[in-house]
Amino acid sequence: MPKTALSKRAQNTPPSPIRKLAPLAINAGKAGIHVYKLNIGQPDIESPREYFEGLRLFEEKVIAYEESQGNERLCRAWSKYINRTLNIDTRPEQFIITVGASEALVFTFMTCCDPGDEIIVFDPTYANYLGFAAIAGINLVPVLCRMEDNFALPVRSRIADKISDRTRAVLLCTPNNPTGTVCSKEELRILFDLCEERNLFLIVDETYREFVYDDFEPISALNLEPKSDRIIVIDSLSKRFSLCGARIGCLLTPNEEVLASALKIAQARLAAPTMSQFASAYMLENIKDDFLERVTNEFRARRNKLYAALKEIPGVIAHKPQGAFYTVVQLPVEDADAFATYMLDKFSYDGKTTFIAPAAGFYMQGSQGLQQARIAYVLNKNDIGEAIAVMAKGLESYSRR
Amino acid sequence: MPKTALSKRAQNTPPSPIRKLAPLAINAGKAGIHVYKLNIGQPDIESPREYFEGLRLFEEKVIAYEESQGNERLCRAWSKYINRTLNIDTRPEQFIITVGASEALVFTFMTCCDPGDEIIVFDPTYANYLGFAAIAGINLVPVLCRMEDNFALPVRSRIADKISDRTRAVLLCTPNNPTGTVCSKEELRILFDLCEERNLFLIVDETYREFVYDDFEPISALNLEPKSDRIIVIDSLSKRFSLCGARIGCLLTPNEEVLASALKIAQARLAAPTMSQFASAYMLENIKDDFLERVTNEFRARRNKLYAALKEIPGVIAHKPQGAFYTVVQLPVEDADAFATYMLDKFSYDGKTTFIAPAAGFYMQGSQGLQQARIAYVLNKNDIGEAIAVMAKGLESYSRR
Repeated sequence: MPKTALSKRAQNTPPSPIRKLAPLAINAGKAGIHVYKLNIGQPDIESPREYFEGLRLFEEKVIAYEESQGNERLCRAWSKYINRTLNIDTRPEQFIITVGASEALVFTFMTCCDPGDEIIVFDPTYANYLGFAAIAGINLVPVLCRMEDNFALPVRSRIADKISDRTRAVLLCTPNNPTGTVCSKEELRILFDLCEERNLFLIVDETYREFVYDDFEPISALNLEPKSDRIIVIDSLSKRFSLCGARIGCLLTPNEEVLASALKIAQARLAAPTMSQFASAYMLENIKDDFLERVTNEFRARRNKLYAALKEIPGVIAHKPQGAFYTVVQLPVEDADAFATYMLDKFSYDGKTTFIAPAAGFYMQGSQGLQQARIAYVLNKNDIGEAIAVMAKGLESYSRR
Repeated sequence: MPKTALSKRAQNTPPSPIRKLAPLAINAGKAGIHVYKLNIGQPDIESPREYFEGLRLFEEKVIAYEESQGNERLCRAWSKYINRTLNIDTRPEQFIITVGASEALVFTFMTCCDPGDEIIVFDPTYANYLGFAAIAGINLVPVLCRMEDNFALPVRSRIADKISDRTRAVLLCTPNNPTGTVCSKEELRILFDLCEERNLFLIVDETYREFVYDDFEPISALNLEPKSDRIIVIDSLSKRFSLCGARIGCLLTPNEEVLASALKIAQARLAAPTMSQFASAYMLENIKDDFLERVTNEFRARRNKLYAALKEIPGVIAHKPQGAFYTVVQLPVEDADAFATYMLDKFSYDGKTTFIAPAAGFYMQGSQGLQQARIAYVLNKNDIGEAIAVMAKGLESYSRR
């Protein structure tokens, strides 16, 4: 009997570039080596006590399904939070609560695109967008952002060149994962105008919205055009409130047709987790603004520490990220994947090593980023200093092999 | 500027037949009418205290991402639970923890099928399977089960007739939603042998496994062939432990290739909710067998009450469901959808009405089930008695319009 074959799409789905080296890190840990994990966007910031308080206040005896659109109180609280912090005027009915930003992106891709349709993305790209595209059967078309431009948005004509008959949307992540680059209001306006002219959706992943440094202020695409049918905002509590494991995201749009269609898909999967929504609603209703100020200050300080440390390493080219908690750096190696593997598999200094994510997996254009790595500054300043010092030792040792 | 069009698949995704009458029920409630909800599979059974205890024992300060494959302790606990209750020998590595059975089914469809491929299902069908098929871009091919046969599995040749070059799997839900019919070990064997002969996957949704009455014992497809590469079991804590809102399901298979492929898709969506997995692991480790005995006894008593009450109503044709907590009945009306609407929109008796799910939405073959409704016996015996009495009054009143 021949083996039952798997689907081609299953075979073609790329493994996560962030997670594939994880087994080597586990082995290093088992061998007694301390591994500084700069590879994933899992901050060490304590989740807000208001979230835990909210959980304790849940009094139902039955953990029943929540509404497919999401807990009403959470939609109201999230809408109020956004209106207050961004000075806009969203309504609770414009939200669909999802299992993280991930699910909001899948719903959006499915709602906007038929199989074979295209969405324009910026390269390097958050690697999971490729997974969502595989799930939705659509094609992502990359426009390259260059390290020498600090990964800023390319000029309009370079984006317009990629628009085809099948293009349905432009997807932007700002502040950006993996580069840490922030899109200015003027750049967003150019992108919106292009979408308006070419009749495309503008999908903006604002998961890291509040984490902006230097002269930037948090903005949403909805600040440009609060009533635009064209704008779909993807949001999440994961990073902002250090609640990655709560799995609470949302899709937010003034477009009622998009909401109605996404809701039909949402109904098939029933609902997002009940208690997590209840606790998130309580948290958003009760959390003080100083929580995010404190966290943003902390990430800014880490960013400064990381950037200063990277600049000291011979041959490393670093740009100063303006937001989120990532950066992409160029290393003085031919193959950053091999170097990242070496760090976990062969190297330690003083019983320690550093886990970085090779950047090639974030680039859709194959030959790009081979010498680059994504570094997530999710550890405290001291640990970041140590981790980069260990990486510098690793680079020395690697060059002498 | 033309409006940005939505995808065809968004337009083609059917709205949930279970949820579409919900606004009428809300209106009836607002008008002061008590609505007996027999329309959805949301039991009123209290969630186990061990789940809430588990939540309170969570001591991490950061609610971090869980592993994409699932919490290790939960995989171990679930495997032990299954091994103990079914006397088989699963291993924790054979599990992927998902956001409810819903996500496990989407992963399975994507792993087994390319767009346009076919899966054979039995009609009437759990309506959300159609939504998952729309998400995965595959075609479900229905084989009709007849009320006059108590919705039993059709003879082998009628199933085999539907197998085409594009068929990749047979999907069975037993105990069945929406019919309450249970597949015997012998019937399962026939189905497995057919899959073996025609090189198909056998996907079995065992969400209601323990809820079997009369002479049935809980079994899994893995009881037939514990090591078969062909069997994919879909499971969930939602119904068994009255944890619908916890959103914890799993995909379980001895097939390592399926697991590896499904894991790649699972990595794109990061992970299932962290605290819910932690609490579920604690619950499975600590819950006593008498919880499920008690719940099964309760549903059996409700089933008996419901069946007895339905048989008393002139013109109603009821079969005695052997499992789960649903049944499909034939009503003495031309259009059960219109009758269900009438009950919510126009009728009340003594300030009460009954909410049932028209069965047509569960049938893929359009003309079937127009006179039928699905009734979920998720209320206590008293309320079921009342609800069916009110429905009987409604039928009388409806026939006199």
